[in-house]
Amino acid sequence: MLGTKLYGPGDVRCEEVAEPKILKPTDAIIKLSASCICGSDLWPFRGANEVTEPLAMGHEYCGVVVDVGSAVKTVKPGQFVVGSFCLSDNTCPHCKFGFQSSCEQREFMTGAQAPFARIPLADGTLVATAELPSDDLIPSLLAVSDVLGTGWYAADAAGVQGGGTAVVVGDGAVGLMGVLSAKQMGASRIIAMSRHKSRQDLALEFGATDIISERGDEGVALIKELTNGVGADSVLECVGTQESMSQAVNCARPGGKIGFVGVPHGVTFDGQNLFFQQKSLLGGPAPVRRYLPYLMDLVLDRTINPGKVFDLEIPLADVAEGYRAMDERRAIKTLLRV
Amino acid sequence: MLGTKLYGPGDVRCEEVAEPKILKPTDAIIKLSASCICGSDLWPFRGANEVTEPLAMGHEYCGVVVDVGSAVKTVKPGQFVVGSFCLSDNTCPHCKFGFQSSCEQREFMTGAQAPFARIPLADGTLVATAELPSDDLIPSLLAVSDVLGTGWYAADAAGVQGGGTAVVVGDGAVGLMGVLSAKQMGASRIIAMSRHKSRQDLALEFGATDIISERGDEGVALIKELTNGVGADSVLECVGTQESMSQAVNCARPGGKIGFVGVPHGVTFDGQNLFFQQKSLLGGPAPVRRYLPYLMDLVLDRTINPGKVFDLEIPLADVAEGYRAMDERRAIKTLLRV
Repeated sequence: MLGTKLYGPGDVRCEEVAEPKILKPTDAIIKLSASCICGSDLWPFRGANEVTEPLAMGHEYCGVVVDVGSAVKTVKPGQFVVGSFCLSDNTCPHCKFGFQSSCEQREFMTGAQAPFARIPLADGTLVATAELPSDDLIPSLLAVSDVLGTGWYAADAAGVQGGGTAVVVGDGAVGLMGVLSAKQMGASRIIAMSRHKSRQDLALEFGATDIISERGDEGVALIKELTNGVGADSVLECVGTQESMSQAVNCARPGGKIGFVGVPHGVTFDGQNLFFQQKSLLGGPAPVRRYLPYLMDLVLDRTINPGKVFDLEIPLADVAEGYRAMDERRAIKTLLRV
Repeated sequence: MLGTKLYGPGDVRCEEVAEPKILKPTDAIIKLSASCICGSDLWPFRGANEVTEPLAMGHEYCGVVVDVGSAVKTVKPGQFVVGSFCLSDNTCPHCKFGFQSSCEQREFMTGAQAPFARIPLADGTLVATAELPSDDLIPSLLAVSDVLGTGWYAADAAGVQGGGTAVVVGDGAVGLMGVLSAKQMGASRIIAMSRHKSRQDLALEFGATDIISERGDEGVALIKELTNGVGADSVLECVGTQESMSQAVNCARPGGKIGFVGVPHGVTFDGQNLFFQQKSLLGGPAPVRRYLPYLMDLVLDRTINPGKVFDLEIPLADVAEGYRAMDERRAIKTLLRV
C-alpha cells in the first residue's frame, strides 16, 4: 500500500510500504475512511525536531476495523471507530484520572497517513459508533481524533465556563477548534487572535465574537481594553512559542487559567512572574480519549461541524503538496483521501 | 511607641517610631493584640532582597480598632478585627473574582511589628468579630492574617479534595498550616516533607499521615512509592527555591495540581517539561481576604488551632532575637507581645 514517510526537513514522500499486521494481541487494524495532516507534523517538516530515520507520518484517524488481536474485546471487524492520537489502555490510574495522554502504557500513534493502520491498545483507545456514519460526517469524526480533541482540552484546561471570556492565541486548526470548543462550553465572549482573513472568517463561523489581529504587547493591550482592563478568564494557547505563550499569560486575568496545547519549543516561565501575576497553567498532549464519546455524539447528532476546518482535500499520493500548502499557510488543514 | 525596622541584612531593630495616624479617609488604626514574624521577613533579613532604606517590618495583625477615617463604614472603634497582609478594596473585579491579592488598589501591609498600625483600605481589608475573642484565641486569629491564609490558599490552589492525596513541600510555618488546611479539606493522605523532629511532630499533630525526610529525587521516589507509583493529586509548595519547586512538580501525578506560595527566588519552569508532565500550576500571594470569614469562624468555634505554630513568644523589644531564632531554625514562628 501507499504510506507517508518523512525523510528530513521538507522531504516528505508517499511510497510503497508494507501493510500493517497484528503484532500484539491488543492490536487492531483499521481501514481508514480518511486521513489528514496535523500542524504538529510541520515541526519535523520544518526541521524543528531532528529526524534520524524516516518517520512513518500520521496520527489522526478514523475508519472501519478489519482485524483484531486475540485479546481485543470491545471492538470487532466491521465497526466504525475513532481513536485518539495518544494510545492508552484506559485502565491505569492516569487514565482513570482522565489523563489518558499520560497512560502508563502510552504510545503515540504513527503511520496513519495511509489506507490502513495498526492501532495498539485497541480496547483502551478506540470508540465505536452504533452504526456506520454517513460519508459527509467523516471529516468531522476524523477531526475528533486530535485537532478537535486538542482544542477541546485547551478550553477545558483553561476552565472555560458559561458566560466567561475566552481568548484563543493561534489561528491554526487547533486554535479554530478551540474557538468552537469555547462556544460549545458556553463562553459568552470569545476573542480570536488572528491576522489571516480566511481564518478570521472561520473563527467567526465557529463562534468567535471578536477578532484581534495585533500581537505581543499591542494585542494584550487590546484584550485588556475589550475586557474593561480586567483580562480574560480563560486563555487557550495553541501555538507553542515563547512569544505566543507570553501573550497568553499576559492576556489572562489574575486567577485566570491558561490551557496550553501548542507543543512548547523553547518556552520557559519565570517563577516570580507567574507568582505575582497569579495565572494558572495546565497543558500537555490532550487526553482525547476522555472526550471521545461526548465529542463523537456532538458530531453524529450534527450539533457541531468541526470538519469545516479542512480547507484542502487531496489524494494521499499528493501528501507532499498537503504539507507544503500548510507550511506556506495556503491551507489551514489538509484532508487526505486514502 | 516601639516599632521594628530592618536596616540591612541581619540588622533588625526595635526603636522609637511615630504612632500611626489616619492618612486617608479609608484608613483605620488598630491596637494590635499581638504581632509576629513571617518566614518571608527572613528574605530581606538574609539579604535576598536589596534594602535601600530602613523598612518598617510586620504585615500580620489582629487587634482592636481605635480610630477610623471618615469614609470607613464596616468597622468601628472598639471592634476586634483581623485583616489580610494584602490590603484590598474588595470591590474591584479582581477582588470579586476572589483574587483580592491582585486588587486594583492592592498594597502590602507594613509596620505591624508594633503596638499600633495603620490599615489602609479598612473596609475592604478588615473583618470584625461579633464580640471580643478570648485571649487564648489571639495567636490563632493572628495566624489567619497570613500564615494560615497562605497555607489554605496553597491547599486550595492545589485542588485538595476529600479523599485525595496531598504532599506538602516545606516544613516552615506555612507548610505546617498547609498540612492543617489539607486535613480540614478532607485529604485522606497528607505527606509532609520534613527533616526536623519538632516540625515533623507538629505536622503529625496538624494531620499529616506520613513524613518523608528525604529531598530531591530520593524524596520524589518515596512519594511515588507511597502512592503506588502514581504521584500526588495535590502538592503544596511552601518554600520558593528551584529545588523545592522541582520536587513539588515531580511529586504530582499527571493532571495533578501544584499550589505554590513560597515567593519564588530564582525559579524557572521549562515549558516542554510542564507540557509532557501535564502538571497544573497556580501560585501567588494568597488572597487571604477571600478566606478570612470562614477561617475566623473555624478558629472562633475552636475547630482548628493554628496558633500552635507559634513556638516562641517574646516581647516586641526583643524582636531581633525572634528573627535570629527563626533564621537559625531554633523557632518555627515567633509571636511578639506588643
